[in-house]
Amino acid sequence: MGGDFAPQNVVAGAADALRTHGKITKLYLVGNQQRIEAELRQLGFTDPRLHIEHASEVIEMDDPPVQAVRRKKDSSMCRAIDVVKRGDADAIVSAGNTGALLTAAHLKLRTLEGVDRPGLACLIPSPENVFVLMDAGANLEPHPSNLVQYAVMGSRYSQQILGYQRPRVAVLSIGTEEMKGNELTLEAHRLLKQTDLNFVGNIDGHDLFAGTADVIITDAFVGNAVLKAAESAVRVVGRWLKDEIKKNRIRKLGAMLAGGAFKALKEKADPDTYGGAVLLGINGICIKAHGASSPKAIKNAIRISTEFVEGHFNEHIVADIRKLNAKLQQIPASQSPFETAH
Amino acid sequence: MGGDFAPQNVVAGAADALRTHGKITKLYLVGNQQRIEAELRQLGFTDPRLHIEHASEVIEMDDPPVQAVRRKKDSSMCRAIDVVKRGDADAIVSAGNTGALLTAAHLKLRTLEGVDRPGLACLIPSPENVFVLMDAGANLEPHPSNLVQYAVMGSRYSQQILGYQRPRVAVLSIGTEEMKGNELTLEAHRLLKQTDLNFVGNIDGHDLFAGTADVIITDAFVGNAVLKAAESAVRVVGRWLKDEIKKNRIRKLGAMLAGGAFKALKEKADPDTYGGAVLLGINGICIKAHGASSPKAIKNAIRISTEFVEGHFNEHIVADIRKLNAKLQQIPASQSPFETAH
Repeated sequence: MGGDFAPQNVVAGAADALRTHGKITKLYLVGNQQRIEAELRQLGFTDPRLHIEHASEVIEMDDPPVQAVRRKKDSSMCRAIDVVKRGDADAIVSAGNTGALLTAAHLKLRTLEGVDRPGLACLIPSPENVFVLMDAGANLEPHPSNLVQYAVMGSRYSQQILGYQRPRVAVLSIGTEEMKGNELTLEAHRLLKQTDLNFVGNIDGHDLFAGTADVIITDAFVGNAVLKAAESAVRVVGRWLKDEIKKNRIRKLGAMLAGGAFKALKEKADPDTYGGAVLLGINGICIKAHGASSPKAIKNAIRISTEFVEGHFNEHIVADIRKLNAKLQQIPASQSPFETAH
Repeated sequence: MGGDFAPQNVVAGAADALRTHGKITKLYLVGNQQRIEAELRQLGFTDPRLHIEHASEVIEMDDPPVQAVRRKKDSSMCRAIDVVKRGDADAIVSAGNTGALLTAAHLKLRTLEGVDRPGLACLIPSPENVFVLMDAGANLEPHPSNLVQYAVMGSRYSQQILGYQRPRVAVLSIGTEEMKGNELTLEAHRLLKQTDLNFVGNIDGHDLFAGTADVIITDAFVGNAVLKAAESAVRVVGRWLKDEIKKNRIRKLGAMLAGGAFKALKEKADPDTYGGAVLLGINGICIKAHGASSPKAIKNAIRISTEFVEGHFNEHIVADIRKLNAKLQQIPASQSPFETAH
């Protein structure tokens, strides 16, 4: 029931997912039963695998996350996570309030064995590759070892879902040199160098879309800020360009002729292809589709959730993290005080 | 002698500045005397206000900042700051190693009375306004009160150099709501609310270029990351678009016809217009022109430095900061532990 187009886009996307993914054995639609049934009637869709789980409340997009999760126990979001918790479903997909989803999933499903903090992993298309950016929103004050665990989980994600054989892992910093960064990134860098990951060092914002890394590690504050800033910059330049084009007939004609290029670009960078961001490190699969998700985005989010389940993703994570933690215990604490250089 | 096109672009820009700005009484070119003289001969430029100050060393772009400043005492950068320190010049302009410049200027010129840490202020053009982003690179682990001082200095910059009457100040966070942010931004927000600044609250990356604030406050890590990420995203989308256009003759023709729009946009967003970033909070005016500065960028950086000097900028800062510090002392410490919400 969350997101900008609920329940219609969610129901339509779920119906599409059932039509195309034969491997789904059960799909729960959690929310206002009457409204869900109305949407299904509208679509003329029935499927024996479909179950409606009624929930009387809705967590709104601007509800404060922690309070909302505590107070709205019968919300569609909390109830959907309950379905996973009781073992009737393997994954939850939601287009609702991000903070509430991360909070509820973390609280109710708990972290996987060995994982200290879950992290949100985003897939970003660049001209050269599709990279994982993590953490994109879960952990605002992480410890360096959290970032190292994110690197392990992000690598597994890149490998298993995107098919990169040996994903290149980088820390997002303020320069490529090893001694550049803040306390958090300098220590994460030091630890990552000693893991078995394919760690390629620091990158900075300039390299974000340059295809130099397949897994980019950062804290949630920076992750959130860079993704939004990049989106904002592209949007503003696009609008600026439109204004300039409108000033002159010949430019307008030109833009019309070149229109196919703009359209092709939009498709390539279409966030709906990947369905959403994934909260990694919890007992269950939790996918956050963006608030304005189309039916296609919901369908793809459901498809990706099936890939996680089929690939026994979380079992691999537990094994990877166990190996990592054993390794980290052997690494001596940093000797010198952190040097934070420009 | 620093930057990608030294000394030719620096010398050419300085010559242009002397030609157009009658108020400059002395201009020192600090660096390799022979090479500077050769450039001047090439330009056929002489001016009695021009002084060459020889320096035998150069801080390279990839030198580690702190060591470089300590070891290369006869570098053009250190010598140029010495000219300001001994009172023969009011301002330094450099296209060299950013970290070294910030370190040397901070160490040699010291902070202004009442200022705890200097901060780097950048001017960014958006469709709606030109905004100040601060700190863009000086202070990687700031205290919340540093951010509040940056807000005061950034406001004065916006007011005095850009002419905004009552600049709107915002904190860059991960959402506009007051309770969103990390420890640093939550506390800075709390303090800023109680100042006399025109504080408009939090913005997030989406609003960065939306014209909702004239002074945007952040720590150097985030400031560096968002600026570079935004630049990178725009560059990548541009390249992607070019590739799509090349695929097809009609698109190529269209792009040619619409070319004026692309050109107009490039001019609007031209970083050379503003010459560079300014290190605020030190005894002197210190402008960091970007490494690839054109003569025009150097000329504009010099012009802006004259505006700072003419407007007695630093005297205003000292008065503003004195007022702020008196105010901050009256604000009780935060009672509750920080709540870091998604």
